Amino acid sequence: MQSACRILGIDPGLRSTGFGVIEKRGSAVVYIASGCIRSESAASLPQRIETLFDGLKEVIATWQPQQAAVEIVFVNVNPQSTLLLGQARGAAISALVSARLPVAEYTALQVKQAVVGHGKAAKEQVQQMVMRLLRLPGAPSPDAADALACAIAHAHGGQGMGSLVTAGRRVKGGRLM
Amino acid sequence: MQSACRILGIDPGLRSTGFGVIEKRGSAVVYIASGCIRSESAASLPQRIETLFDGLKEVIATWQPQQAAVEIVFVNVNPQSTLLLGQARGAAISALVSARLPVAEYTALQVKQAVVGHGKAAKEQVQQMVMRLLRLPGAPSPDAADALACAIAHAHGGQGMGSLVTAGRRVKGGRLM
Repeated sequence: MQSACRILGIDPGLRSTGFGVIEKRGSAVVYIASGCIRSESAASLPQRIETLFDGLKEVIATWQPQQAAVEIVFVNVNPQSTLLLGQARGAAISALVSARLPVAEYTALQVKQAVVGHGKAAKEQVQQMVMRLLRLPGAPSPDAADALACAIAHAHGGQGMGSLVTAGRRVKGGRLM
Repeated sequence: MQSACRILGIDPGLRSTGFGVIEKRGSAVVYIASGCIRSESAASLPQRIETLFDGLKEVIATWQPQQAAVEIVFVNVNPQSTLLLGQARGAAISALVSARLPVAEYTALQVKQAVVGHGKAAKEQVQQMVMRLLRLPGAPSPDAADALACAIAHAHGGQGMGSLVTAGRRVKGGRLM
């Protein structure tokens, strides 16, 4: 990894996709930007996918990341919700690969281990650690915090952690709740 | 609808996404092209999404459709498969909307009704009717046949049928098996 590498973390969702941009400088991680892209539930599915895809393309154009890390989502108890979440995640990854960004995937367990130190951390603990690690004055929104945590996991783990994501792997992880 | 309108039909899937291009000329439908984009199961999910996304962008660039119609997929008994199918469909719709194509969605029931005349048609009946309606010398591959059938449904229904797909609708249909 280069001495300074800009990483875009993504927490995909159809209603709201969180994004977080950090820069890894040596062993330090520095906050650059974060937020979320929302799609209106009254819009058609193609319109919602267009909103997410275009929104992420704009984030990439604005912040110019060199690598991307996407959280591996867990299947929902409701199959329809699983299908919608899958479509949102497919749109997010499409935006990343169409910008020719290398994409790593991390389970919620891997993200929690990297950020908090163990896999059973509560959502609030992850938010607190993201704030502390990035020296933020306040808590980011939950979706943005999850996206930043995913980017931090990628920065901390680097290539070694990325290699846990083997080719053709199936979804194993959980979604931060 | 114009006197000649080129329609791209899509039958989304992660392993294989079928596509079919037809032209509506007055009341006639004319075959232009069809095929499928396959992704290797040994590749990582981002790589597979890149293959589908780039493949569809190439299809769009080559055949220059003016409208798109995507089959509404049914949730699978296996939640992991549903999530993978969702991600493939999200990638397909991303490719369409990023090319600024208007995207209509049809359930398998609507497609069968439009092509065969009733919603309980078997897969083979759909293939036969696609062959007959488009005057094809042989049967297209199942994925391509489904994609062509979806394009025919859009051509036959036109704006009226398209309006059945109301904003913000949820998945209701089934996947042609």
